[in-house]
Amino acid sequence: MNLCDQHVAVIGLGLMGGAFALGLRQLEPASIMATDCNKEVLEKALEEKIIDYGAQTPEEIARMLFQSHLIILCLYPSDAIDFVKTYGRYFQENAILTDIVGVKEPIIRDIKEALPPTVDFIPGHPMAGSEKEGFLGATEDIFVGRNYVLTPLPENKKENLNFIKTLIKRLGFVNIVESTPEEHDRKIAFTSQLCHVIAAALVDADEDLKITDFEGGSFGDLTRIAMINAPMWTELFLMNKKALLAEIDKFEESLQAIKGHIAQDNAEALIETLKDVRDKRVVMEIQRMNKTRTPFPTK
Amino acid sequence: MNLCDQHVAVIGLGLMGGAFALGLRQLEPASIMATDCNKEVLEKALEEKIIDYGAQTPEEIARMLFQSHLIILCLYPSDAIDFVKTYGRYFQENAILTDIVGVKEPIIRDIKEALPPTVDFIPGHPMAGSEKEGFLGATEDIFVGRNYVLTPLPENKKENLNFIKTLIKRLGFVNIVESTPEEHDRKIAFTSQLCHVIAAALVDADEDLKITDFEGGSFGDLTRIAMINAPMWTELFLMNKKALLAEIDKFEESLQAIKGHIAQDNAEALIETLKDVRDKRVVMEIQRMNKTRTPFPTK
Repeated sequence: MNLCDQHVAVIGLGLMGGAFALGLRQLEPASIMATDCNKEVLEKALEEKIIDYGAQTPEEIARMLFQSHLIILCLYPSDAIDFVKTYGRYFQENAILTDIVGVKEPIIRDIKEALPPTVDFIPGHPMAGSEKEGFLGATEDIFVGRNYVLTPLPENKKENLNFIKTLIKRLGFVNIVESTPEEHDRKIAFTSQLCHVIAAALVDADEDLKITDFEGGSFGDLTRIAMINAPMWTELFLMNKKALLAEIDKFEESLQAIKGHIAQDNAEALIETLKDVRDKRVVMEIQRMNKTRTPFPTK
Repeated sequence: MNLCDQHVAVIGLGLMGGAFALGLRQLEPASIMATDCNKEVLEKALEEKIIDYGAQTPEEIARMLFQSHLIILCLYPSDAIDFVKTYGRYFQENAILTDIVGVKEPIIRDIKEALPPTVDFIPGHPMAGSEKEGFLGATEDIFVGRNYVLTPLPENKKENLNFIKTLIKRLGFVNIVESTPEEHDRKIAFTSQLCHVIAAALVDADEDLKITDFEGGSFGDLTRIAMINAPMWTELFLMNKKALLAEIDKFEESLQAIKGHIAQDNAEALIETLKDVRDKRVVMEIQRMNKTRTPFPTK
C-alpha cells in the first residue's frame, strides 16, 4: 500500500486537521480532500492548495467518503461520534479510518458500531497541540519530535496498522506507543488532562493581571496550556471523568504532603521530597530523550 | 559613577553569580573579583578570565571587600545573611551592596543590621534562573528579556539606585519593577514559589517513570522547574511560609471548584471557567509583551 495511490479525507480542518493536511501535502498522496463546518476555512485551504477538494453539503461529504482510502477524523470527541453515525454508511469498503480524539475508551465502541464491518478503524492520539486554535493556527511543525499513541483493535489488519505507523513517522512523530484504550485514558488523565486542570486553576487563583511583572518563567511555563479550547477540553474532562478525578486526588495528596512540611517547618522532609522529585524528573527527561531524541518539547 | 571605574565583587559563583560575572565581563568594569566555597570553581573562572581575582581565605575575602565599590551577593538566603554577619565590617565605606535572594522581607533587616551604616544596600531579585545548577550551568543569556524586581530602602541614595538600574538593563533585563519587600514576597509566593510547589507535587503524584511515552508537552512544561535546587528552595519556602501557604490555599480552592464541576458533570460551568481562564491568561501575555517586548520566557 503506497500513499501516492491513496485518496485521503481529513474531517475537520481545525488546528489538528489543518496540521495533518499540511503535513500530508508534503507526502503527495493521490489527493487530499476535506470537510469543515466553516466554509471560509475550506475555501482558504483550497486557495492555498493545501487540499484538492472541499466537501460542504451532505451529498459532497458522502461522495468524498466513497472515494477515500484513508479518513482522518479530526473533530471534537462528540462531533467525531456524530460524524461517523451520520456518514458511516458512505465509507468506502476496506477504507482505513483513524481519529485523534484525546479519550479512547468512551468513543471507540460508538464509532465501531456506526461503521460498516469492512472499514478498519485504528484509533490514535497524536500527542501534539498548540495554544493556538483553528486552521489559522495550524502548522505541521507541531508534529515534529512528538509521541503518538495508537490503541489498535484486535480486528485491525496488520498491513493497515503498518501503513498508519509509516505515515505517522513521515509526518514527523518519532515515538509511536501502542496501548490499550483503558491504559491510554488512565495515563492521559495524568500527563495531559490533570496538567490542563492545574494550569487553569493556577490562572484562576489570582486576580492581579499585573502579576506578570513578578514573573521569572515559572508562571508562564505552568499556565501556557491554560489558553485552552474550553468546549473541547470540557468534553475531554467529562468523558474521562473517573480517571481524571482519580489523578486530581493523587495530585492533591502530594500537594498536601508538601504543604504539611512547609506548615510544620520540616526542612528535612522538604529537602528529601524535593531531591526525590528532582531525581525522578531527570530520569523522566532521560527516558524521553532515549525514545524521542528530543527533550520535553516546549512551545 | 561609571562602571569602568568600579571594582565589583561577586559573592558566590553559582548559577546566578556565574551569570552575573559573565554578564559583567562584557561591560568591562575596572575589575571583577569573586569568592566561592568551591575552590575549583574559582580556579576555572580565573582560568577562563571571567574573573580577575578569586578570594579563598577569610583574609583574601576581607581584602577583596575592602577594595570593592559594588558587591553582588549571590548566595542562598541563610548563607547571604551569614556572609554579611561575618564580613560586613570589611565592606568599603560608601560601597553599594545588592543581593539576589528570592525572599526580601525576612532578610533585609538581618543584612542591614550587620552592615556599616555608610554601605548602601539595595535589595533586588532578578526574575531569571534555570533548571541547571552551579557555575557550569551559568550563562548570561538567562537574563535576556526578563523582569528584575528591586525593593529599594528609604535610605538608598538616588544615584546608587540609578547606577544599579542602568547595570541591570545593560545585563539584558528589560523590565525593572520597584516594590516594597512585603509586596514582593506576597507576589513571588504566587508567581514563583507556588509554581515550584505545584511542579514538585505533580512529579511526586505518579510513580510510572515511562509515563513520558504519553506526553505531549504539557507535563514537560509544568514540571521543568521540578528539577529544583532542593536546599535553596526549602529555605525560600520556609522563609516565606505565611504568604506561600496562603497562595497554596487559594490555588486549592480554584482546583476544588474545577474538580467539583467535573464530578457533577457541569459542562456549562466548566466551559465558563475555562473560557474565563483563557481570556485572563491572554490578557496577562499581552500585559507582559507590552512591558518586556517578549512573550513569557521559555527555557
